Amino acid sequence: MDIYTRYKSLRQRTEDICRPLAIEDYVVQPIVDVSPPKWHLGHTTWFFETFILTPHVQGYQPFNPDYNYVFNSYYETIGNRVIRTDRGNLSRPTVDDIYRYRQHVDEAMLKILSAPLEPEVSDLIVLGIHHEEQHQELLYTDIKYILGHNPLFPAYDVTYQPPTLKSTSTNDFIRIKEGLYEIGFKGDGFCFDNELGRHKVYLNEFEISNRLVSNAEYLEFINDDGYSDFRHWHAEGWDWVRNEKITAPLYWHFIDNSWYHYTFRGLEPIDLEASVRHVSYFEAYAYAAWKGLRLPTEFEWEVAAPNFTWGENWEWTESAYLPYPGFKKAPGAIGEYNGKFMVNQKVLRGASAITSPGHSRLTYRNFFQTNLRWQFTGIRLAK
Amino acid sequence: MDIYTRYKSLRQRTEDICRPLAIEDYVVQPIVDVSPPKWHLGHTTWFFETFILTPHVQGYQPFNPDYNYVFNSYYETIGNRVIRTDRGNLSRPTVDDIYRYRQHVDEAMLKILSAPLEPEVSDLIVLGIHHEEQHQELLYTDIKYILGHNPLFPAYDVTYQPPTLKSTSTNDFIRIKEGLYEIGFKGDGFCFDNELGRHKVYLNEFEISNRLVSNAEYLEFINDDGYSDFRHWHAEGWDWVRNEKITAPLYWHFIDNSWYHYTFRGLEPIDLEASVRHVSYFEAYAYAAWKGLRLPTEFEWEVAAPNFTWGENWEWTESAYLPYPGFKKAPGAIGEYNGKFMVNQKVLRGASAITSPGHSRLTYRNFFQTNLRWQFTGIRLAK
Amino acid sequence: MDIYTRYKSLRQRTEDICRPLAIEDYVVQPIVDVSPPKWHLGHTTWFFETFILTPHVQGYQPFNPDYNYVFNSYYETIGNRVIRTDRGNLSRPTVDDIYRYRQHVDEAMLKILSAPLEPEVSDLIVLGIHHEEQHQELLYTDIKYILGHNPLFPAYDVTYQPPTLKSTSTNDFIRIKEGLYEIGFKGDGFCFDNELGRHKVYLNEFEISNRLVSNAEYLEFINDDGYSDFRHWHAEGWDWVRNEKITAPLYWHFIDNSWYHYTFRGLEPIDLEASVRHVSYFEAYAYAAWKGLRLPTEFEWEVAAPNFTWGENWEWTESAYLPYPGFKKAPGAIGEYNGKFMVNQKVLRGASAITSPGHSRLTYRNFFQTNLRWQFTGIRLAK
Amino acid sequence: MDIYTRYKSLRQRTEDICRPLAIEDYVVQPIVDVSPPKWHLGHTTWFFETFILTPHVQGYQPFNPDYNYVFNSYYETIGNRVIRTDRGNLSRPTVDDIYRYRQHVDEAMLKILSAPLEPEVSDLIVLGIHHEEQHQELLYTDIKYILGHNPLFPAYDVTYQPPTLKSTSTNDFIRIKEGLYEIGFKGDGFCFDNELGRHKVYLNEFEISNRLVSNAEYLEFINDDGYSDFRHWHAEGWDWVRNEKITAPLYWHFIDNSWYHYTFRGLEPIDLEASVRHVSYFEAYAYAAWKGLRLPTEFEWEVAAPNFTWGENWEWTESAYLPYPGFKKAPGAIGEYNGKFMVNQKVLRGASAITSPGHSRLTYRNFFQTNLRWQFTGIRLAK
Repeated sequence: MDIYTRYKSLRQRTEDICRPLAIEDYVVQPIVDVSPPKWHLGHTTWFFETFILTPHVQGYQPFNPDYNYVFNSYYETIGNRVIRTDRGNLSRPTVDDIYRYRQHVDEAMLKILSAPLEPEVSDLIVLGIHHEEQHQELLYTDIKYILGHNPLFPAYDVTYQPPTLKSTSTNDFIRIKEGLYEIGFKGDGFCFDNELGRHKVYLNEFEISNRLVSNAEYLEFINDDGYSDFRHWHAEGWDWVRNEKITAPLYWHFIDNSWYHYTFRGLEPIDLEASVRHVSYFEAYAYAAWKGLRLPTEFEWEVAAPNFTWGENWEWTESAYLPYPGFKKAPGAIGEYNGKFMVNQKVLRGASAITSPGHSRLTYRNFFQTNLRWQFTGIRLAK
Repeated sequence: MDIYTRYKSLRQRTEDICRPLAIEDYVVQPIVDVSPPKWHLGHTTWFFETFILTPHVQGYQPFNPDYNYVFNSYYETIGNRVIRTDRGNLSRPTVDDIYRYRQHVDEAMLKILSAPLEPEVSDLIVLGIHHEEQHQELLYTDIKYILGHNPLFPAYDVTYQPPTLKSTSTNDFIRIKEGLYEIGFKGDGFCFDNELGRHKVYLNEFEISNRLVSNAEYLEFINDDGYSDFRHWHAEGWDWVRNEKITAPLYWHFIDNSWYHYTFRGLEPIDLEASVRHVSYFEAYAYAAWKGLRLPTEFEWEVAAPNFTWGENWEWTESAYLPYPGFKKAPGAIGEYNGKFMVNQKVLRGASAITSPGHSRLTYRNFFQTNLRWQFTGIRLAK
Repeated sequence: MDIYTRYKSLRQRTEDICRPLAIEDYVVQPIVDVSPPKWHLGHTTWFFETFILTPHVQGYQPFNPDYNYVFNSYYETIGNRVIRTDRGNLSRPTVDDIYRYRQHVDEAMLKILSAPLEPEVSDLIVLGIHHEEQHQELLYTDIKYILGHNPLFPAYDVTYQPPTLKSTSTNDFIRIKEGLYEIGFKGDGFCFDNELGRHKVYLNEFEISNRLVSNAEYLEFINDDGYSDFRHWHAEGWDWVRNEKITAPLYWHFIDNSWYHYTFRGLEPIDLEASVRHVSYFEAYAYAAWKGLRLPTEFEWEVAAPNFTWGENWEWTESAYLPYPGFKKAPGAIGEYNGKFMVNQKVLRGASAITSPGHSRLTYRNFFQTNLRWQFTGIRLAK
Repeated sequence: MDIYTRYKSLRQRTEDICRPLAIEDYVVQPIVDVSPPKWHLGHTTWFFETFILTPHVQGYQPFNPDYNYVFNSYYETIGNRVIRTDRGNLSRPTVDDIYRYRQHVDEAMLKILSAPLEPEVSDLIVLGIHHEEQHQELLYTDIKYILGHNPLFPAYDVTYQPPTLKSTSTNDFIRIKEGLYEIGFKGDGFCFDNELGRHKVYLNEFEISNRLVSNAEYLEFINDDGYSDFRHWHAEGWDWVRNEKITAPLYWHFIDNSWYHYTFRGLEPIDLEASVRHVSYFEAYAYAAWKGLRLPTEFEWEVAAPNFTWGENWEWTESAYLPYPGFKKAPGAIGEYNGKFMVNQKVLRGASAITSPGHSRLTYRNFFQTNLRWQFTGIRLAK
């Protein structure tokens, strides 16, 4: 697909994701990790305006100079920013303002996309496309949190059907031989800077499951009082469980003696055969410890993944999010994209049912803090 | 005005106050003291449904039984409630849902208002009207906070003109003789339970200003480093000033060497002759201490008020909010209205420019915590 | 008693209170309201050094200039101070250092007390004596907290016997006639500035109990689920009960189906006939509300007190701590003594079993925040 | 040295470290990471009583059964524990009680150490010795914090001279060839479980400095506004710098235009040639980023360390603290020693000037959270 068409369909898809929302749903921020949908709509647009249009298109008029302040994210280089906890307090700009902002920027973008581009500009646009794809996934997870924490449990879309992956019926462990493996991105396509620096890693022989842990299996952990036995948990995980009174994955509710969970279609009984999701790293680790097994490292995962199906849930690994050998931040604001988060987070590998089509790949490295659960996160075991 | 007409015009006025808002403005809650406008619209409606329609109208069908959970306020007697800090996290019910809720309740209410009423029901409806008038004032102050804390400083209504009160040009002190005075509500009209228990209070001779402290006068306090000198402040007030880094009244901004403040029309230069408003009790006390004067007690205020103009800002008094002799809470949920707040708050007397017409009276007792500033609060001095 | 003897016996009594302590007990600060005993020993000494010796004795050499920083309390006028929460983090000066500091100051003080004094100096010394008497009571309550919150429940003194007050066996209500009464200190002796400004108060007829609420009576409230029924509580008190998980007075422990409480002699079964103590204002109010009665105002208390026995527990009143008419702060640091606390606190009247002999009087006004319980606080009912 | 002699000299050394302290210094806990010295004295003793004497010596009488509650640390298996933040609130047991506790346990220990031991018991005693050596280092760092944060800046010992390491005058980088290296403990001696699982790691060619970063070099970073430029910092590190207002290493004070730091001898001018210490991982990372270099991984460090001098400061590495391949927790309480901390911490390698003699080794893995600074932590650069 050419870049003009890609840009256009990307931007359309973002708005399609928001189509089922009421205006009010665009505005709220129930927890700091969630951003209001209207902020995602504005922020992804601000990215193209700030990094493409303003520096590279002569005579471009920003839609509204104050928007830099409002939609700037973690990019400290680019002026002040609304602090993250404030995003849900801002009723203005309105949703309508932001759709007009998108239109203003899209018109300017499509104009320059109609002509040949400097490679430097083209690369930045491709980065902007991948950036917006990441926010498409966040839109889904943030919308789920906003509606799923409303006491009325409104559906996002009663007909919603996620792309499904049939799990194999048997839980087989795939054995991978000891040896020296190459890790990291190779090839001509796009990848993020944190995947670069392809390098050799020596792995001991290991085994890894051919499928994700299911809700039925996870229920055994719950029913065996897994949440009440400190021996399965990291010290920090155990503090989290007790302070937050965690007793089940996010969105699970125990009603009239049965487990339900909130989905995009509303409150539904747990599907026992489906993969468990919305668990934190702490829970993934505790579950594995309870089983007498462990989580794979991100290197084991990358080596073994061609042998199993993935893409249903982001999969927690045991690996801390660290730079690959030779990692260098890009100069300027773009360089803040990845490197500054490389401390106290865990790597997730794979992709999830709501990841934008074509967005992930074998070497893709996602990362989150160890207590977070609002992403579609799951568990794959290793030994 | 008959009660049918009063009810109808009351309900209309509430919606008129919201007319200039965008949908998004109805949703947010930037601080815990502020409620989203849509919550006020729903809560005042819930009051009539819960206390009038459900118990007194046979066959009445609640619009949505879950709304009791969502719009219940401090009434612990009536089931669980959404905790106050969560109000701004709820995108549903939507604004449109709530307007339909209002219509549903209004139809049922107007039907019973068309026929003769039991005095007990009639009294409750009058209470509900005064309750909604209180929320009309809160709607104004909460809308001001929501828009006034948005970095874009949007106007509520560029043509807004508050009912103005011409201050007398001279600041004269009115002398009131020592003696025994009667305090509290007398007569046949409506009053809140906290005004009842008319009783004698002995006052020493005192003097009270015939007008409120102006912005010009308050600026002298600022310019004399009043916010940096602990001697003017209560110990608790001084902690508040330092922890919150308070240097001026709420909504004041020092821009390019001049003071501006946010009004319903947007950001405007301070009007030096207008009365200072949006100050906390701590600030009112400190200002008075700096002047070598003091605030009046609520009893002094009630005795002296016939001699001066009031109604521009709620006026902080030195009196703690306490029950009058013989105060009794009404039985049931209605009894939670006033008595449970009678600790660690200060009485305000008078009314403000945005108080609903006819809502206040000489014996009216408003009350807030000593650090709050988002109401239209001002200062009158005594000695 | 002449002032020389009074000073000497005062200073001796302070050290006698500390005699049963281990060095370690002088050091710790388990909650912010409690100060380490060694801090009390130093602070009361610092008062005499700072306000008497340094300004009024030529050539006086401060024991250690850094002590001003360490032992300064709330007196903002006098340089920086160790913030309250830090007091328990300071291992130096040692207890021994502080006893030598006391000796150094006492020698200088006794020298000037042997000669005639300017009335201004004499008045300040008397203030210092009353100030140290207040800290003697705090020493008792802080020591009780320090030992009573140790998991080993060490006794302060196994032979400790408080001065006891025999309660009358019957709970009779004393009726006081409606009328105009004079309130506030009168006479030549010492009083604090907050008792001055004798003024007339008009009281309705009221009745007040001739004795304090007993443990047996308070247990009925507990057993009637008084701590679980919001209707008895102020909104703020109810939040306090739930957030702090309060279910009984401070120092009460439910062990093997019986109630025990920590006393200066260690853990002991509750004495049902004794007066309940270590309750907050919130609890005192809730107990009274549950009984269908109320707490007296401080004015009612002062008028009625000649008719009953008092002095076993400080008694919570319904009155907010406010200035009497004409109250003026003294100039300088001494002026910070009382006035700056006159907001969001309640007045207690009477005295307690551990109040220094001769320290209290009918017009004495003690005051604390509404949630505090580590003082010997009790309940007297009115109606 | 035989185990009897080792035990005896170990126990003596712990008490020698505390010899310069006043009783009061044993008691306080200024921050949660610091434990009161008396707690260390008790906890190390409790370890021998709980894991050796009680299970393995018939008829052993615990000194005081309540001490299990007081001196239990992170071992959740062994009953309740005093929560960490409470340690500094406990005046009892007294220091004298604890020395008698040590004597009681030592007598029983020396008795069993005089006879042949089961290897299982012997191994546990060796673990207990290494455990107490770790607490010896913590005693030094906690004492330094306690005295160094006292406003009087008392010396621990004015004659204190740390074992010094002469840094080479030139800062040379040692080049290590790309290749497969073995990592982890090998041999017969003692090591902790986190060093086991010797395994192959493939390293790219790298260079590592032959010495630690000096105070002079670190001052250049300070003077170049390194603490004010977000580009050098992780996002989480930058939040830490701003929230905690960090502007220099711990114990540094800028007085009269010069830098001083607190040492065991009191406040002294910075020694420019000495190695910088008391920096957090965040600072170590930011310094390296500012230099255009990086921190070594723990694997690079272990491979390169035979080529340089180490042991002056614990050295931050870029490696997250994670289990080695095949890591298994020991069963029971002993198994809580290391594994439960393997999340969100960084590995430090080497040893420090105050590490107990013979305690460290090339494969030793220390670990702390990324914001902690009260250990003797330094910086070695790599590229």
